[in-house]
Amino acid sequence: MGLKRKDILAIAEMEKEEIELILQTAESFKEVSTREIKKVPTLRGKTVVNLFFEPSTRTRTSFELAAKRLSADVINISTSSSSVVKGETLLDTARNIEAMQSDIIILRHASSGAPYILARALRSAVINAGDGSHEHPSQGLLDLYTIKEKKGGIQGLKVVIVGDVLHSRVARSDIHGLKKLGAEVHLAGPPTMIPLGIEQWGVKVHYRLEEAIAGADVIILLRLQLERQGKGYLPTLREYAQLYGLNSKRVALANNGVLVMHPGPINRGVEVTPEVADGLSSVILEQVTNGVAVRMALLYLLSGEKS
Amino acid sequence: MGLKRKDILAIAEMEKEEIELILQTAESFKEVSTREIKKVPTLRGKTVVNLFFEPSTRTRTSFELAAKRLSADVINISTSSSSVVKGETLLDTARNIEAMQSDIIILRHASSGAPYILARALRSAVINAGDGSHEHPSQGLLDLYTIKEKKGGIQGLKVVIVGDVLHSRVARSDIHGLKKLGAEVHLAGPPTMIPLGIEQWGVKVHYRLEEAIAGADVIILLRLQLERQGKGYLPTLREYAQLYGLNSKRVALANNGVLVMHPGPINRGVEVTPEVADGLSSVILEQVTNGVAVRMALLYLLSGEKS
Amino acid sequence: MGLKRKDILAIAEMEKEEIELILQTAESFKEVSTREIKKVPTLRGKTVVNLFFEPSTRTRTSFELAAKRLSADVINISTSSSSVVKGETLLDTARNIEAMQSDIIILRHASSGAPYILARALRSAVINAGDGSHEHPSQGLLDLYTIKEKKGGIQGLKVVIVGDVLHSRVARSDIHGLKKLGAEVHLAGPPTMIPLGIEQWGVKVHYRLEEAIAGADVIILLRLQLERQGKGYLPTLREYAQLYGLNSKRVALANNGVLVMHPGPINRGVEVTPEVADGLSSVILEQVTNGVAVRMALLYLLSGEKS
Repeated sequence: MGLKRKDILAIAEMEKEEIELILQTAESFKEVSTREIKKVPTLRGKTVVNLFFEPSTRTRTSFELAAKRLSADVINISTSSSSVVKGETLLDTARNIEAMQSDIIILRHASSGAPYILARALRSAVINAGDGSHEHPSQGLLDLYTIKEKKGGIQGLKVVIVGDVLHSRVARSDIHGLKKLGAEVHLAGPPTMIPLGIEQWGVKVHYRLEEAIAGADVIILLRLQLERQGKGYLPTLREYAQLYGLNSKRVALANNGVLVMHPGPINRGVEVTPEVADGLSSVILEQVTNGVAVRMALLYLLSGEKS
Repeated sequence: MGLKRKDILAIAEMEKEEIELILQTAESFKEVSTREIKKVPTLRGKTVVNLFFEPSTRTRTSFELAAKRLSADVINISTSSSSVVKGETLLDTARNIEAMQSDIIILRHASSGAPYILARALRSAVINAGDGSHEHPSQGLLDLYTIKEKKGGIQGLKVVIVGDVLHSRVARSDIHGLKKLGAEVHLAGPPTMIPLGIEQWGVKVHYRLEEAIAGADVIILLRLQLERQGKGYLPTLREYAQLYGLNSKRVALANNGVLVMHPGPINRGVEVTPEVADGLSSVILEQVTNGVAVRMALLYLLSGEKS
Repeated sequence: MGLKRKDILAIAEMEKEEIELILQTAESFKEVSTREIKKVPTLRGKTVVNLFFEPSTRTRTSFELAAKRLSADVINISTSSSSVVKGETLLDTARNIEAMQSDIIILRHASSGAPYILARALRSAVINAGDGSHEHPSQGLLDLYTIKEKKGGIQGLKVVIVGDVLHSRVARSDIHGLKKLGAEVHLAGPPTMIPLGIEQWGVKVHYRLEEAIAGADVIILLRLQLERQGKGYLPTLREYAQLYGLNSKRVALANNGVLVMHPGPINRGVEVTPEVADGLSSVILEQVTNGVAVRMALLYLLSGEKS
C-alpha cells in the first residue's frame, strides 16, 4: 500500500485520506526512531538526495536521519558546493542527479513552485522541503502528527497561527492540513503580516493576539525573519514581542492543556518567552522528534509507490 | 583479476587492455546501479575519501554514489572545510588521511600533476578526479564506455571534439583514450583554444565546425568556462555560439545516428542549443548514468589490487 | 563494562583507572581499524552527530571514520551550514539534535566550557572535540595511547611539551593525562606563551629548549597559530623557529629512542624541520592512526553506558 502520488509537493493538493495514511504510517516509524536500535532495512539500496538551495540544518538533518534509519544511501548537495555556481539550470542539475539513479529527491528552494518543475520532469519522487513562501508540507504534516498525538484528534480543535503568515510556507501548509482535518483555524499578527483576503481560505483573522488565543487548543508560533524586521512597514522586534510575543499571561487565556508549537529555530524573547518555550505547554521538541518519523513515512510511502 | 596499477592518474599512461578491462567491468556494475536494490557488499569495510580542492557536485556525487553502492565508507573533504586553510601541504593532508587507513583517495585539484605526488608517496590507491588542465581519466573512461555501448565499438569511428581544448582535461583524457581504442579524432575550435602542435598526437585540427562535423559518428562538446570568455584573445559567448555552438542544422552534417556528448554542466545556448541537448542524438544524461558504473569499476579494480 | 560517566569533557576530571580503561579498549579497536575489513556492527542503529563550530578536517574526519567503522549513522553539522546563522543558541541547536534521538554529540566550539552546557542539559553523551583553549581530551588520550604503545608505559618518562602552551587545549589535556599516569612533565617556550603559575600543576618550565630536551623520552610539539605570530608580544615565525623549532641537532640532546609528536597540522620549518618530522623519531602519523582507535573506544564506551 502506498500513496496515489509520485511526489509530495503541497498539502493543499492532498486528500484527507492521504494525510491520514501518512500520519498513521508515521506512528510505526516513530517507534523505530525512538528505540535502542533505530534502524530498519526498508530502503536498503535506494538513493535519497538532499538538494538544498537554501541553508537549513534542521530540515536537512531530519531528512538525512530519516533516510539513514531506513538504510537508504543519502547524498547531500548544498548550494555552495553545487554546480549551480557553474551556471547550470535547476532542471539540468536535477536531471543529472536522476541520471545517477536517484529514487527520491528532497528539494529546498527559494522560489515558490520550484519543486513542481522537477516533479513534472523527473521519474524520481520529489519531496518539497520548503519552496519560497509557498509550502513546506513535511513541516505541516509533522505539526498535524504532533497535534493528533497529543490531542487524540484534530477535528473541532481551535488552532491559532501567530506571526508573519504572509511570508510563511509553514503557515500555508498548516492551514491547508488543519482545514482538511476539520480544525477551526485562526490567524493572529500585525496587519502587514496577514495576506489580504486570506479569509477566503476559511480562516478567521485577528489583529489582537489575546482575542485570538481565547479558548485556543493549539497555538502555532511562526518564526520571525529577524533580518526583515523594522524595515518599512514591518514592526521592530521590540514592538513585535510586545504585541505578539507569547508569554505565560497570554497562554493562560487559552484552554487548559493548550499546545504551544513552533517550527524552529526559535528567537527567544521575540516570538515566545523562555518560560513558555521551555514550559509544560510547549511541544516544540516533540515536533522535532516527530519530524523524523513523518519523514520516514514519506520516504517509505513514496518508495513503495515505485516498487 | 585486477589492474596492474595502484592508481588511476591518466589515460595517457594506460594500456589498451587495461582500458578494455575497465569498460568490461563497468558493464556488470551498470546492471547493479540501475536495478531496484542498487547495492552490493563488495567494498564493505573499505574507506574511500573524496578529497576535493575544487568544487564539483557531479564528479564528487558520482564517486560518492559509486562507493556507497559498493558498501564502502565514504568521507568527503572539500577545500573550504579542509585543514588546507591552516596552511598544511597537500602531501601532509594526504598522509594524514592515509594514516586513518584510507583505501582509496579520490583527488580533484587545480594543479596539473598533483595526483602524481600523492600516488608516489602513499600506499592508498589514488584516482585523479581532474587535475588542472591535465587529465580527468574517469570522465574519459565514461565517454569511451558510452560510445562503445551505443556504437558497439570504437575502432574506426570519426569522433570530433569541439571547444576549448587548450584548457580541457576532459579533452586530453578523451583524445588519449579514443586514439588507443582506434578512433579517428578531430578537433574543432577557435585557433586560440587549440594547442599549437597538437597534431603530433595524431589528431586533425579544424577551425570551421562544419568541416569537422561532416561525416562524424560522435561529437563531444567541451564546456566553456564562461568567466574566461571575451577577455583578450578569447571570443565572446555570442561569437562562440555563432561559430561553434551545435545546432540541429550542424548536427545534420554528421552521419546518421551521430552521438552528441558533453561532460556537463552544459551552457544551454552556448555550446549547444536546447533542441540538440535534449534531442534524440544526445547521450549527455546517459554519460552521467555510465559515470557511476565506470567509477564503481575503478573502485572495485583498484581495491582488488590490494587484497 | 563501561565508563562511569556520561560524557568526555576533560582529562582533568578523569580518574587514572578510567584513562587506562579507555587506552586498553582502544587496543582492540586499533586491530579493527587496521585490518582488511575495517568494520564492526557494534553501534549499528545508533546516531552520532559531529557538531563543529570551528573548521577541522582531521578531528571531524577521525570521529566520522571511528563512528562509521562501528556502523553508526553519522550526521555532520558545521557552522557555515548550520542554523546558527539564523541566530539560534547553542543549547537550542543541541536540544534539537537530541530531539532527533541522537546518541552521542561530538562538539567542537571556540568557547571554553561550551561542552559542559550541553552535557548538563542533554541525555545524549557529549564528547568535547576541543573547546577554546580549555581541553581536547580525545587528542590527549591518543597522545597517551601512542606513548604507551611505543614506550610500554608512561610512568616515570620525561615528557617535554614545546610551544604556545598558553593558548593550547592540547597542552592542557596532555599535561593532565601525563601527570595522572605518572610522567614527569616539562614545558618549553617563550615566556609570553607559558601561563604564569603553571608550575602549580606540577610541571617544570624552561625558556631554553635545549635545557628542556636534555634527557627527554618524549617531545610533544604544539602547533603555532600562524595568524597570531609577530603581533605585539609574540615572536615572529623566524624567531620562533630559531629558538624553539625542533631540528636534528636538538633531537640529539634527548634520550635514545625519543618520540617526536605533534597534533597536526604541522608547519614545516617552524615547529619542526622536515628531517625531524619525517624522521625515525617521529610518530606523528601514528598519532593519527591511533586517533581513530581511541575515538572508537570512546564512542563504544559511552554508548555502552546507556544500554
